[in-house]
Amino acid sequence: MPRQTQIGLMSHGELVSEHEAQTANYATLKTEKLTLDLTRGKPSPEQLDLSARLLTLPGEDDFRDASGTDCRNYGGLTGLPELRAIFGELLGIDVDNIVAGNNASLEIMHDIIIFAMLYGFPDSPRPWAREETVKWLCPAPGYDRHFAITEALGIEMIPVPMNNDGPDVHVIADLIANDPTIKGLWAVPNYSNPSGAVFSEEVVRELVSLPAAAPDFKLFWDNAYAVHPLTDTAAPIVDVLGLAAAAGHPDRPLVFASTSKITFAGAGVSFFGASKTNIDWYLSHASKKSIGPDKLNQLRHLRFFGDAEGVRAHMQKHRELLEPKFALVRRILEDRLGASKVASWTEPKGGYFISLDVLEGTAARVIALAKEAGIALTAAGSAFPYGNDPEDRNIRIAPSFPQLPELEKAMDGLATCVLLAATEKMLEQH
Amino acid sequence: MPRQTQIGLMSHGELVSEHEAQTANYATLKTEKLTLDLTRGKPSPEQLDLSARLLTLPGEDDFRDASGTDCRNYGGLTGLPELRAIFGELLGIDVDNIVAGNNASLEIMHDIIIFAMLYGFPDSPRPWAREETVKWLCPAPGYDRHFAITEALGIEMIPVPMNNDGPDVHVIADLIANDPTIKGLWAVPNYSNPSGAVFSEEVVRELVSLPAAAPDFKLFWDNAYAVHPLTDTAAPIVDVLGLAAAAGHPDRPLVFASTSKITFAGAGVSFFGASKTNIDWYLSHASKKSIGPDKLNQLRHLRFFGDAEGVRAHMQKHRELLEPKFALVRRILEDRLGASKVASWTEPKGGYFISLDVLEGTAARVIALAKEAGIALTAAGSAFPYGNDPEDRNIRIAPSFPQLPELEKAMDGLATCVLLAATEKMLEQH
Repeated sequence: MPRQTQIGLMSHGELVSEHEAQTANYATLKTEKLTLDLTRGKPSPEQLDLSARLLTLPGEDDFRDASGTDCRNYGGLTGLPELRAIFGELLGIDVDNIVAGNNASLEIMHDIIIFAMLYGFPDSPRPWAREETVKWLCPAPGYDRHFAITEALGIEMIPVPMNNDGPDVHVIADLIANDPTIKGLWAVPNYSNPSGAVFSEEVVRELVSLPAAAPDFKLFWDNAYAVHPLTDTAAPIVDVLGLAAAAGHPDRPLVFASTSKITFAGAGVSFFGASKTNIDWYLSHASKKSIGPDKLNQLRHLRFFGDAEGVRAHMQKHRELLEPKFALVRRILEDRLGASKVASWTEPKGGYFISLDVLEGTAARVIALAKEAGIALTAAGSAFPYGNDPEDRNIRIAPSFPQLPELEKAMDGLATCVLLAATEKMLEQH
Repeated sequence: MPRQTQIGLMSHGELVSEHEAQTANYATLKTEKLTLDLTRGKPSPEQLDLSARLLTLPGEDDFRDASGTDCRNYGGLTGLPELRAIFGELLGIDVDNIVAGNNASLEIMHDIIIFAMLYGFPDSPRPWAREETVKWLCPAPGYDRHFAITEALGIEMIPVPMNNDGPDVHVIADLIANDPTIKGLWAVPNYSNPSGAVFSEEVVRELVSLPAAAPDFKLFWDNAYAVHPLTDTAAPIVDVLGLAAAAGHPDRPLVFASTSKITFAGAGVSFFGASKTNIDWYLSHASKKSIGPDKLNQLRHLRFFGDAEGVRAHMQKHRELLEPKFALVRRILEDRLGASKVASWTEPKGGYFISLDVLEGTAARVIALAKEAGIALTAAGSAFPYGNDPEDRNIRIAPSFPQLPELEKAMDGLATCVLLAATEKMLEQH
């Protein structure tokens, strides 16, 4: 067990000695020649095994949904009504306000922003591509693939602080009230990536109600972890569309979800929920690119789940596999870093990530040290717009994929890197 | 059997009498209260049954490809190498130059034009959205969904005559040599939609060789019917990428294909083939919208086909179901319209369509008459840019979906409508 002392209170001598100890730990770590990966929120093989039955569904003679549609043939841009009803129930969205798509909700988000760029939303003064400037609010730390979409399109990203109950609404209120070029906000309302924060109903009410200078200000509401609790009390699904309609902004939220972390990652079904106006607008443009989504994969999922309760029961099995991994990460962080006071971390009650903040100015160094020791972490700053973590302290931990023994090694190694980088930094400053 | 006389040579009295006969036929037709559909190139249920085994594939314990990739998890933007090798062989494209996607090649075409609009091709002077004008060559009659994409984006479409060996290269040569705003051409090289024409190797050579004023002039090469012959001698696959490279324009062709009319329409796998430069460009932008295609559906298809010969053997079964339908359509057209000389039609050796040309100025009337009698045809002009058939004479016939008895009724009814509209028109002009 490494020593437990608050590094910031150490004398120079103690610091030198601590640095030496961690240097020795790190040297030992490197001799292990690890190849461990904490980068991506990938389900583990055991989680994927939970959906093994999908691999033989829908079955040789099963290709029609309840309405009689032959799912093997063309047609049906909105997806299967029965499956939309199940996920509508889970997401608190009426079946008429939700469509089911192909394997990636990211694709729908991307397409919608592209359509906004080229054609504008129904409430846009003009296509966004014809605006001088388009800006976007990015609660940070957040999801790097969200930021990659807006960055690629030249949309100017403005970081917004994330609190435990969601993004800072005071900052947002001030920005959107006065700047008509701010057109959107990325949000992961339940078990945010990476902090695990759950947006409170109060924060959601504010987000849908705040006056916005842009008539077409949109909330990109990526509810990727809607049914992914890690505790007995699941975070409630706040009815963002209903609250927005009540607040006079029915067309503000665009809700996304998928089964990527429910069944198979990359071979699941995506969903898009919105006001009828936005759904119709989306379908009118989507109809140019596709005759419809893969209805057989939707039928496969329908047969597999049966109903919304089937999804919830299935998620309980995921929880049983994920909980020990999150507990292990917490335990090692606490054991190795608790007393040192050079790091803090979130304790998510759901989702796929833990957000670790290390000593200011050391995250990039920690990630480099870990890489050299065979522990892969997402690039420094990934959770921030433009990859720019202003304090160089955030590291996203994805504990789902590795087996427990590998995860233990990786986290223990990471803790060593955190302490080594911290003592280096403190010695520099002494 | 209706009378067989060349309508153009009839005396006024004969014409009146023929018009009366067809009016009576049409009245009888309406009493049958048909509901028949010749609109879309949809596979029939019997064709879909050929792929029934896909409905239980890949099987409970089968989720890794030969390289060991777990197809249930994230990753792999290019698709499964083994499946790409099979369709590469069928399309004459090296495995490194072809990627496998989701269920719709139309989506890849759409995405590529969008990427060109927003970012430009590697050889574009600037993003197409920043050009004053972008124009497109549209061999016509052609595929309405192609034209819908370019129309939606405000790209100016120029019709080009279609001959039996492909589009008119003299017209194309002149246009692209002098107009740098012409950025692309839609093409269905094998068994064109709707004429069934097969581009000759000579035409392909010209298309890849012709000097173009635009450095980023592209051939959108939709080889949707590459392996869909209806005779013993399949139309050869011309190596458009190889010829283009030899002609000094390696980046000109963009090849598309899918299994929509091989396995399940809308639940198949799409393919995109191009130069390495174009593939890399596409993937760099596609990586923003998706972590990768549905690899399990690709694995399913891989297991189903086994190899390229498996695809060919499977297509032979489709041919056995389709050939009698095409033969029936030809027989009825010949029997009912052959002697009248008011119509001509193509006799495709593959693909999904027959293109029927009726008396000039009567196609819209024929389609309206058919609709009133319960026979659905695609809207008049659909096979032309902006839905504008300048001579109002083209009708696309899609014989694949109906059963033979229904197809016979529909075609016989359609022939009546053609003759009725023709005699009406001739009487007007007398």
